[in-house]
Amino acid sequence: MGSGIKVFAPASVANVAVGYDILGFALEKPGDEIIASFKDSPGLEITKITGAGGKLPYELDRNTAGFAAKKLLEHIGETDRGIAMEIHKKMPFGSGLGSSAASAAAGVMAVNELLGRPLEKSQLLPFAVLGEQIADGAYHADNVAPSLLGGIVLIRSNTDLDVHRLHVPKGLYVAVIYPEVEVLTREARSILSKQVDLDQLIRQSGNLAGFIVGLYNADFDLIRRSLEDVVIEPQRARLIPHFYEVKEAALNAGALGCSISGAGPSIFALCDNTLTAEAAGKNMQEVFDRQKIKNQLFLSAINQEGAVLL
Amino acid sequence: MGSGIKVFAPASVANVAVGYDILGFALEKPGDEIIASFKDSPGLEITKITGAGGKLPYELDRNTAGFAAKKLLEHIGETDRGIAMEIHKKMPFGSGLGSSAASAAAGVMAVNELLGRPLEKSQLLPFAVLGEQIADGAYHADNVAPSLLGGIVLIRSNTDLDVHRLHVPKGLYVAVIYPEVEVLTREARSILSKQVDLDQLIRQSGNLAGFIVGLYNADFDLIRRSLEDVVIEPQRARLIPHFYEVKEAALNAGALGCSISGAGPSIFALCDNTLTAEAAGKNMQEVFDRQKIKNQLFLSAINQEGAVLL
Repeated sequence: MGSGIKVFAPASVANVAVGYDILGFALEKPGDEIIASFKDSPGLEITKITGAGGKLPYELDRNTAGFAAKKLLEHIGETDRGIAMEIHKKMPFGSGLGSSAASAAAGVMAVNELLGRPLEKSQLLPFAVLGEQIADGAYHADNVAPSLLGGIVLIRSNTDLDVHRLHVPKGLYVAVIYPEVEVLTREARSILSKQVDLDQLIRQSGNLAGFIVGLYNADFDLIRRSLEDVVIEPQRARLIPHFYEVKEAALNAGALGCSISGAGPSIFALCDNTLTAEAAGKNMQEVFDRQKIKNQLFLSAINQEGAVLL
Repeated sequence: MGSGIKVFAPASVANVAVGYDILGFALEKPGDEIIASFKDSPGLEITKITGAGGKLPYELDRNTAGFAAKKLLEHIGETDRGIAMEIHKKMPFGSGLGSSAASAAAGVMAVNELLGRPLEKSQLLPFAVLGEQIADGAYHADNVAPSLLGGIVLIRSNTDLDVHRLHVPKGLYVAVIYPEVEVLTREARSILSKQVDLDQLIRQSGNLAGFIVGLYNADFDLIRRSLEDVVIEPQRARLIPHFYEVKEAALNAGALGCSISGAGPSIFALCDNTLTAEAAGKNMQEVFDRQKIKNQLFLSAINQEGAVLL
């Protein structure tokens, strides 16, 4: 491990209530760690996986981190390099917190660093997205981009990976609760109506625009009024037990807004200070505790760094 | 006319390709002028209308400027004041340039100024919107708000009149062409599908967000990529003869984007400098000239003042 590189990539919250498939932000924790090192035999190999309960495959083509790294190595013509990759899952998967995206981001970052950084970090995005696609089925960057790059990220177009970090006002803080119930991403996608009312589009558009303007102007009241999802949340809420009760608990604590993280079951509450986030987190947790649903609570600022070398 | 007040309110471009019902911006010209002065007999009266070809009613309840001013006077308890209002239309109506909104904005502003400014300008918005509603049938502010307040305006919610002026980068310039063909706003609304594909919502949302981020970051390339309307324009383009030819002509001249102004038939081309706007305007005009369609061309910066005292 003398030549080993250890990378951390964080969890992320996609959709962010009003930006279905186009917004995501990175948390400070939890996240995944990946260690890349040279080995004698040629080719990339996943040599160790911890924290996954035996649920993640070692085959490169079926592993988000492995496949992302493989596509990167193909791109830079280094497929013969002997590289060993250890994946240490340190966050729940199937949680709606971008677990597979974190692994994909950490995977490409670790390999890129090991090889002396042939590409800039931002150039790694397409390979990480390809890795994420293994798990998710769709080519989209709303988890991968924040996990890799940090910040609150707009993906104007997933096809073009036209990705922009938005201004993050000081004080923005988030409480995320993961109730240990199962929501399958593919199912969460399949239940969505393929059509939306024009009136819903107008309201959702106004809220999306309001949220972005609120970020740029540090106008927390505007952010508060804007964080209302009239399209996706009403369709998915029933997949998460006690969702509306949890949401109300967060809003009662003063959260700016509260909605489903990605495809769920995690629920995030955006707040304009740490104390409110702590109170919102506590309130949300109490609902699940009362219902005897095991849960994990994460409190975090918006992570501005994304994937980092440890 | 010793005590007369003369107000100009500008034309405006609503929708702006990616913000149906929630975005609008003000032009420097054309616009309407309204003169308000005291008279001896009690009550508000429209005493003169010019430039309307006899098409505008003198009845307060059927005139956008008159009704807006009447609602303002009711609000401030001044319905007995003797006020004469002259309306001088100096812009085409039925053009998609917010003609009725300009009259409504000028009407409330003139009366408010005449009475010594009992309300702040921004407080006049609800009354101007009520006036505009006479002509349009809908309670919405995407023309009235820019015409009154100036700038590029986001209306997060038309119901709440949650209105925000966006950052306007230096150099933004617009060419607007009005082909003298008839498009009825009500018809332009009625042909729109009441439903939108979820995929269209995602693309339109990405473009809307990209446009706003482009404005705040003065990123003209991002604005260019974002100004693509995948929802409304494809449905309304057929109402405007030669629309796609005109659009192509504007884009060929280097415009950032080109789409329908409001419900049409006017077409706007946003540009990042005056020379490109002039070239885009010329190109658009040539298409209509070739087709022997009478037209008027307007070149303008984004008007940052809105309605002003002359």
